[in-house]
Amino acid sequence: MKTTILIHCPDQAGIISSVTGFIHAEGGNIIYLDQHVDKQANVFFMRLESEFDGNVVSFSDFKNEFQSVLAGPYNMEWNMHLSEERPKMALFVSKYNHCLYDLLSRFHSHEVEVDIPFILSNHRDLEYIAEQFQIPFYHIPVTADTKAEAEKQQVELLEKYGIDFIVLARYMQIISPALIDKYPNRIINIHHSFLPAFAGAKPYHAAFARGVKIIGATSHYVTEELDAGPIIEQDVTTVSHSHKIADFIAKGRDLEKIVLSRAVKLHIQRKTMVYNNKTIIFS
Amino acid sequence: MKTTILIHCPDQAGIISSVTGFIHAEGGNIIYLDQHVDKQANVFFMRLESEFDGNVVSFSDFKNEFQSVLAGPYNMEWNMHLSEERPKMALFVSKYNHCLYDLLSRFHSHEVEVDIPFILSNHRDLEYIAEQFQIPFYHIPVTADTKAEAEKQQVELLEKYGIDFIVLARYMQIISPALIDKYPNRIINIHHSFLPAFAGAKPYHAAFARGVKIIGATSHYVTEELDAGPIIEQDVTTVSHSHKIADFIAKGRDLEKIVLSRAVKLHIQRKTMVYNNKTIIFS
Amino acid sequence: MKTTILIHCPDQAGIISSVTGFIHAEGGNIIYLDQHVDKQANVFFMRLESEFDGNVVSFSDFKNEFQSVLAGPYNMEWNMHLSEERPKMALFVSKYNHCLYDLLSRFHSHEVEVDIPFILSNHRDLEYIAEQFQIPFYHIPVTADTKAEAEKQQVELLEKYGIDFIVLARYMQIISPALIDKYPNRIINIHHSFLPAFAGAKPYHAAFARGVKIIGATSHYVTEELDAGPIIEQDVTTVSHSHKIADFIAKGRDLEKIVLSRAVKLHIQRKTMVYNNKTIIFS
Amino acid sequence: MKTTILIHCPDQAGIISSVTGFIHAEGGNIIYLDQHVDKQANVFFMRLESEFDGNVVSFSDFKNEFQSVLAGPYNMEWNMHLSEERPKMALFVSKYNHCLYDLLSRFHSHEVEVDIPFILSNHRDLEYIAEQFQIPFYHIPVTADTKAEAEKQQVELLEKYGIDFIVLARYMQIISPALIDKYPNRIINIHHSFLPAFAGAKPYHAAFARGVKIIGATSHYVTEELDAGPIIEQDVTTVSHSHKIADFIAKGRDLEKIVLSRAVKLHIQRKTMVYNNKTIIFS
Repeated sequence: MKTTILIHCPDQAGIISSVTGFIHAEGGNIIYLDQHVDKQANVFFMRLESEFDGNVVSFSDFKNEFQSVLAGPYNMEWNMHLSEERPKMALFVSKYNHCLYDLLSRFHSHEVEVDIPFILSNHRDLEYIAEQFQIPFYHIPVTADTKAEAEKQQVELLEKYGIDFIVLARYMQIISPALIDKYPNRIINIHHSFLPAFAGAKPYHAAFARGVKIIGATSHYVTEELDAGPIIEQDVTTVSHSHKIADFIAKGRDLEKIVLSRAVKLHIQRKTMVYNNKTIIFS
Repeated sequence: MKTTILIHCPDQAGIISSVTGFIHAEGGNIIYLDQHVDKQANVFFMRLESEFDGNVVSFSDFKNEFQSVLAGPYNMEWNMHLSEERPKMALFVSKYNHCLYDLLSRFHSHEVEVDIPFILSNHRDLEYIAEQFQIPFYHIPVTADTKAEAEKQQVELLEKYGIDFIVLARYMQIISPALIDKYPNRIINIHHSFLPAFAGAKPYHAAFARGVKIIGATSHYVTEELDAGPIIEQDVTTVSHSHKIADFIAKGRDLEKIVLSRAVKLHIQRKTMVYNNKTIIFS
Repeated sequence: MKTTILIHCPDQAGIISSVTGFIHAEGGNIIYLDQHVDKQANVFFMRLESEFDGNVVSFSDFKNEFQSVLAGPYNMEWNMHLSEERPKMALFVSKYNHCLYDLLSRFHSHEVEVDIPFILSNHRDLEYIAEQFQIPFYHIPVTADTKAEAEKQQVELLEKYGIDFIVLARYMQIISPALIDKYPNRIINIHHSFLPAFAGAKPYHAAFARGVKIIGATSHYVTEELDAGPIIEQDVTTVSHSHKIADFIAKGRDLEKIVLSRAVKLHIQRKTMVYNNKTIIFS
Repeated sequence: MKTTILIHCPDQAGIISSVTGFIHAEGGNIIYLDQHVDKQANVFFMRLESEFDGNVVSFSDFKNEFQSVLAGPYNMEWNMHLSEERPKMALFVSKYNHCLYDLLSRFHSHEVEVDIPFILSNHRDLEYIAEQFQIPFYHIPVTADTKAEAEKQQVELLEKYGIDFIVLARYMQIISPALIDKYPNRIINIHHSFLPAFAGAKPYHAAFARGVKIIGATSHYVTEELDAGPIIEQDVTTVSHSHKIADFIAKGRDLEKIVLSRAVKLHIQRKTMVYNNKTIIFS
């Protein structure tokens, strides 16, 4: 069985040697190791994939020992994922279909290995896609008056289905701090600009007005400050004076769906870590 | 002889037909035509390259006729450049050598067809490069106290040498409105960020702090508002958590020199027009 | 009504002036003009969008006059499309779903304005997608023995439905010269390499074996020589030693679908012309 | 003192743990580790940066022990570089100045930390640049008749100056197997195409004839087969039908100099390993 271990802790000499020695002693074979040191913050980060003979190793024993031998002494934050775990992803959408279609076609062809217990939207426009893919669809309208009640219903659904992380596939609604706190670094948004330029509403209009020659899209974890969370992935494409706002939007759609799907795949593969509002993205 | 004509005027039916008919009637052969309509502002833009038998045509007559037959009736702003004109470019630099070396090596291999009457700097650090290329170098220090006097000396030099446009090749000083007014849309700056993100000082530090995955460089015409002038050219490159600020700066240098040189070439080839703080960049 | 006129003819002085004068005299307003001269071949190309008051103009009269006044004297190849025409596109697929899903979701959101009378495949694997989108699906298996018969059935379908152009959305079968001759420059293929590198079968395997650092995808018109037709669009993405062949394939899928959809949109918008096995792509 | 160790050996369990344990036991602190496994060939690769207290460690003892404790048992090919070593780079050029200027300006601003004992050319065209930068210049003409003699002189120079690696900065001559054998994976070439497309002479002309929409440049280690050596770095830029061959060449120059300088920097930083005619490029 394959395991992925993510670690961060204060930097000091000997961590790699200790961890790899431990894995080896436990009968694991390290098949991938990547590490990073944030010199400013003096923090060490590591991602480690190992193979174990799953019939032999008891992973609860392994975890206990890792905690007492390594995590305690080195003051580590860490977690371990088994390759057989399949995360549960909720999709929040609004009226645009491109990111939803893109994610679902990847899901359907096993490029994105998750369960999708439901799709949720504040509008009914995309219900037909949920039906095409036979995924439960929940319509929870959101207005200024009903926002609190709507979010209560959302949380009930998220908990009922045991959701691990949420993807805002052009959901277009601001997520409340209460919900963010329940899913720290587990709500992935796609913003249709090259952040930090053009945060907030109507970024393509703002980019057009400024006369930029390149537009972008940014996928990030949602934090309380709007469009200011840790960036997972960005990409850009060229535009010119000959492009109208509608052209910016059309070109941007291709960026949005590609960038969001890359971010979702990185998240699922446990290749992201967050520290000080920035990400480490392992290769 | 080849001429390049740039026109903008209120949009209306028949402009292209009238202008091309006029050129044809005057004995010119149109070898390139590109046009753009700004629908929001209802403004028509055109760039036209034509070949004339220079022995036959009197260009001052041509200009007079163009003005009375076309420019007057259509309310055109326009100008015409002859291919034999060679613009005079002043280079303002400070301490970084990469943009200067890049422009001078292109100048030296005739990729950038200009005259460079002088290089000006507020420091002596790059004087040796001016000597390598045998171009006059003027050292005009700038302090808070001497800024007005320094700019007076700059203007004297610019006028003495009949400079057509100024390139700020990482000059690192803010240009005063008085000087900008003398060279409207004729001062080209390179800013070391993907504008409008990270305008102002230390953009690489700001980009690093934000944790972006892509950095950029922007060349623009200088206007009174800092880093807010019409964008001529932008480009980007990827970065990751593994890059330190020094790496951002090193990667950025390559962007800066390429983006600046592209902008300078577009300007020299009369492929840029400015309207409403945006550029039209002809192909 | 909006018309798009495409012209090519031997280059000579006065063409632009004559054509734009003609359009103007016929009551048309030129809203876009782009032109190109192939100096080697001495051929002139032009694309022209004009607006006419459709109640007034008789387009058959217009065409006759254009032919006698311009096309005859200038020896033009030309055609004209009315904006209300909606081309009929046939989709040929095999087993991969990503290009098909991508095109259909664009079709569904009116980004690609065509009719899709049917989807055809040599396998049944993607029939479910045709059903999701309620588009007729024809299963025509192809073996070495049945290839001639299969193509006969294909042609019958193409003619029955009045198909204008064919998109090979990863069809994976070689098209016979007979079929290509019926649809010259109207069969669009997506090849999963940066042509001319890695033409033919298994390009990702070949790219992996060569150790390239960038992979690409190429959309082109199909000609008799395999993967050697006029290139419409290309794009690339970076890879490294850490990517396995499966990673090349996954990254490539995103290129393929984006590049193919761009090519299809250029074709539909009449922005492509073909000459000497190369394309002119108007902006 | 900082050391960089590069290792490859047959893959097996326990290598990382053994190596990092050894470094730790010897008093080293690992500050960077990256590893790769070629699953097809079953080969393990690792790059390791460590800090040692240079007053305490004897590096010759260290090497002996590393060899007996690790390299022998694991059947490793390995080498170790001390950060204070400064490699000696010879520059071979012909008539184009852009790559030479680019490398020298980086050299001059300490971006490329090497010694450059001499510049060698078969023409005198760029001698002036060597003079600008006060670097010895050797003019060794090459004709079909004198090629053997010329190479003999080259080798004498290379050996006299103790050259570590050679950069062909658009040298335009084929290197003989005899010279390649003396500098295996230590001769870096820049080829002006996106290899393997357009190997050999006049790639821009070939790219123009094929009508590609993207051109590239490739830096690779020189092997006996022309333009077929291990690729270190590639990059691309877009072109269109409107670009003439001269435009391809001008756009290509920017690619060539950037790609070559990246490859040179990777080589100097010991971030490249070669196996089976492919490179591993460490981050």
